Amino acid sequence: MPLDRPLARYIDQTVLTPTAGEEEIRSGALAAREAGFAAFCISGWLVPAAAEVLQGSQTAAAAVVGFPLGFQQTPVKAFEAGRAVEDGAREIDMVVNRGLLRQGDGARLRDEIRAVVESSGRAAVKAILETSDLAAGEILRACDLAVEAGAAFVKTSTGFFGAGADEDTVRLIRERVGLRAGVKASGGIRTLDQALLLIRSGADRLGSSSGLEILAEWSAFRSAD
Amino acid sequence: MPLDRPLARYIDQTVLTPTAGEEEIRSGALAAREAGFAAFCISGWLVPAAAEVLQGSQTAAAAVVGFPLGFQQTPVKAFEAGRAVEDGAREIDMVVNRGLLRQGDGARLRDEIRAVVESSGRAAVKAILETSDLAAGEILRACDLAVEAGAAFVKTSTGFFGAGADEDTVRLIRERVGLRAGVKASGGIRTLDQALLLIRSGADRLGSSSGLEILAEWSAFRSAD
Repeated sequence: MPLDRPLARYIDQTVLTPTAGEEEIRSGALAAREAGFAAFCISGWLVPAAAEVLQGSQTAAAAVVGFPLGFQQTPVKAFEAGRAVEDGAREIDMVVNRGLLRQGDGARLRDEIRAVVESSGRAAVKAILETSDLAAGEILRACDLAVEAGAAFVKTSTGFFGAGADEDTVRLIRERVGLRAGVKASGGIRTLDQALLLIRSGADRLGSSSGLEILAEWSAFRSAD
Repeated sequence: MPLDRPLARYIDQTVLTPTAGEEEIRSGALAAREAGFAAFCISGWLVPAAAEVLQGSQTAAAAVVGFPLGFQQTPVKAFEAGRAVEDGAREIDMVVNRGLLRQGDGARLRDEIRAVVESSGRAAVKAILETSDLAAGEILRACDLAVEAGAAFVKTSTGFFGAGADEDTVRLIRERVGLRAGVKASGGIRTLDQALLLIRSGADRLGSSSGLEILAEWSAFRSAD
């Protein structure tokens, strides 16, 4: 399968260990920058350290918001996103409120996502659904709401709970959003095979803490040609 | 073992399922109020629904902050706590930043906890350490910092990751904080035996999503006397 850009440009390298500190994040950001990943995805308090290293590069600092459970008040998520952008985040990975979705409050969920989109300014917002916790109908509804609210991507999973991204779910989301939004697959992606399969299923971003290993596999595969 | 108050007054009944909605929280709050639990612990967006039901009762609405990973920026946690208190929370269960702790930034961690204490006003703040992720020395240091920052309780765990509260850890924390703070044991507490053991080890609060079951066991045990 031909890729439309280098594999690294599909990957959001991710470090969300709660004990990670600033030194680890600076060296992770440097490696992400050198690899040319699309983004380096970290927690809010580590955005300043990552953004400093990534400044002027093609790798965006991406901050998680409402992560990983998504059950904060809307203004809290908006404040968190705004702060991350002030600190240098160029992308925001937010977890949507599944309680609102489950109780059928579509308008309130759309307002929540829109509030985060607005406070994120020019930063692209990815709406994380945690699909393993949702029925197919809920996934489809959440896709529509995220797109209507202005999210740039629909993202499958946090990687902290349940099953991560699978082929069928990525295809379901891609079919629903079409060209209206990007699709980010995440959760449990650790090998080149998985990465290529998910791209083939419609993902244009992959979240993984094994980005460097996947790139190394890719280089080995191509040099074996 | 004689308890110094009814068992229900030791228990923070907890509902933190990310798909929980307002109806479930209202009925949970009503049950918590009728049982006379010390608190009913929920996520931020559900505080208004819970607080409405709990108003005027002896059961406090307790909101989680920075939950469950604790890696947000300090002003984000402070904002989240302030908003929860405005919405009716009388207690705040915040997760401390273990990255700061791990990299030896005690003063910054103390400032973080203090910022949450200040924005929580009269609401009691519980500092959640996630002890299963920490070395004994880190637990002791975090206890001191939490007490210095004005936390009302040191709490063991989120219940989402790693092992929950165990006897030895509760005893370690109690010995360190003495009478300077309360100790809340949480994570995996599902039976009366566990509850009594943890109280005997020094806990004066227990976080559990099985509070009603534990109380029922306790009633059965006492009526069998």
